[in-house]
Amino acid sequence: MKIYDTALGPFPARVRIAIAEKSLEPRIEFVPIDLLKGEHKTATFRDKNYSGTVPVLGLEDGTFISECVAITRYLDVLDGMPTLTGTTPKEQGVIHMMTKRAEMEFIEAISIYFHHATPGLGPQVEKYQNWEWGIYQRDKAFAGMRYFDSILRQQPFVAGDFFSMADMAVLGGLIFVDHLDVEVPTECYTLSSWYKAMQERPSVKNRVTMFK
Amino acid sequence: MKIYDTALGPFPARVRIAIAEKSLEPRIEFVPIDLLKGEHKTATFRDKNYSGTVPVLGLEDGTFISECVAITRYLDVLDGMPTLTGTTPKEQGVIHMMTKRAEMEFIEAISIYFHHATPGLGPQVEKYQNWEWGIYQRDKAFAGMRYFDSILRQQPFVAGDFFSMADMAVLGGLIFVDHLDVEVPTECYTLSSWYKAMQERPSVKNRVTMFK
Ligand SMILES: N[C@@H](CCC(=O)N[C@@H](CS)C(=O)NCC(=O)O)C(=O)O
Ligand SMILES: N[C@@H](CCC(=O)N[C@@H](CS)C(=O)NCC(=O)O)C(=O)O
Repeated sequence: MKIYDTALGPFPARVRIAIAEKSLEPRIEFVPIDLLKGEHKTATFRDKNYSGTVPVLGLEDGTFISECVAITRYLDVLDGMPTLTGTTPKEQGVIHMMTKRAEMEFIEAISIYFHHATPGLGPQVEKYQNWEWGIYQRDKAFAGMRYFDSILRQQPFVAGDFFSMADMAVLGGLIFVDHLDVEVPTECYTLSSWYKAMQERPSVKNRVTMFK
Repeated sequence: MKIYDTALGPFPARVRIAIAEKSLEPRIEFVPIDLLKGEHKTATFRDKNYSGTVPVLGLEDGTFISECVAITRYLDVLDGMPTLTGTTPKEQGVIHMMTKRAEMEFIEAISIYFHHATPGLGPQVEKYQNWEWGIYQRDKAFAGMRYFDSILRQQPFVAGDFFSMADMAVLGGLIFVDHLDVEVPTECYTLSSWYKAMQERPSVKNRVTMFK
């Protein structure tokens, strides 16, 4: 299998963590995509993913699967033993809900801030920016961090008692924050110390270097 | 189980179609939420769903599951025989990808248009509007419709050969369009005739009245 991504990207991080959690490194070949040069917006790349984003998973049969949730679910069930996306209906429902919530309220919000209220990937890529919307979404992401902080005061992981796809989405948001001129609000000390602890997890710690 | 929703809503439609496809009507009690009065933005409702949107599924044990994808997956695996969200890893991956793509490129885009560049749910609910962003997302939705039109020229359903969660997401977008002052672009005749055919499907046709 191939993963088209960029090593430092916050969305790619979500899938790299999944790959490591599932010990799939030996089966994956990484193909770097140069976002600063807008390689993800070319017609060739858009044939793989209409939305023009990374990561994208390329299967041997020529199928391309984009979207972190879709790729993570695919990788998680490959061995018939899902550990990251739940097994019972309730586990699956809650993990999908918390993942989507982490996307809307945090990682996608902070991503919009990056692309709309900062220089983003530069003028070649950011053809349209809406500064006010970017700031609005930054504030939404701050509220999202406060929400996830409150969740992590009640339970060890975002979707409950075990590490799941939902944690990867929140981690992606925190990794995004690390790249930017914003910070996790100081009152979110539970979220911050959870992030620190998660960075000791091999899948999280080695996500950039392990595939070199 | 309870479903908190609003009978005519495009997102609720996605879940109502799933309920009918899975013949789960007898097990569901519908609780109407008054969006025009902003009932979904109250603290009570936000305790059920932080994001303040419908539909929300309430389980007997007190768990609330929001987000169409999460609810659909939950309902689809309740009987251990998923028919709407895939069984093989590839089916699951492709269905999740096409569903998320339909969200980002179509139903969420048209929803942003509604909430930001039309009166939306009225001044009591729409506390912040960004008109320019609304128009930008409307145009994104038009492009999304052209994309799904091209997909449906190649295959009978959005994610391939069978009706799935991804079709429900595109149907939700088309139902949203029906509510608004916009139209499916005339050149998207495959998408339009597919929509017409889908409206003959009992789950789609009876989604509003079947639960009265
Ligand atoms: N919905 C996508 C989002 C992926 C995404 O936004 N990836 C970033 C890289 S961190 C990207 O490709 N950004 C480029 C751009 O938006 O121009 C997913 O879940 O995979
Ligand atoms: N991401 C949510 C979106 C649901 C959604 O936007 N629902 C609409 C009803 S059609 C809503 O609650 N809108 C109220 C609002 O945004 O104020 C999902 O997939 O369930």
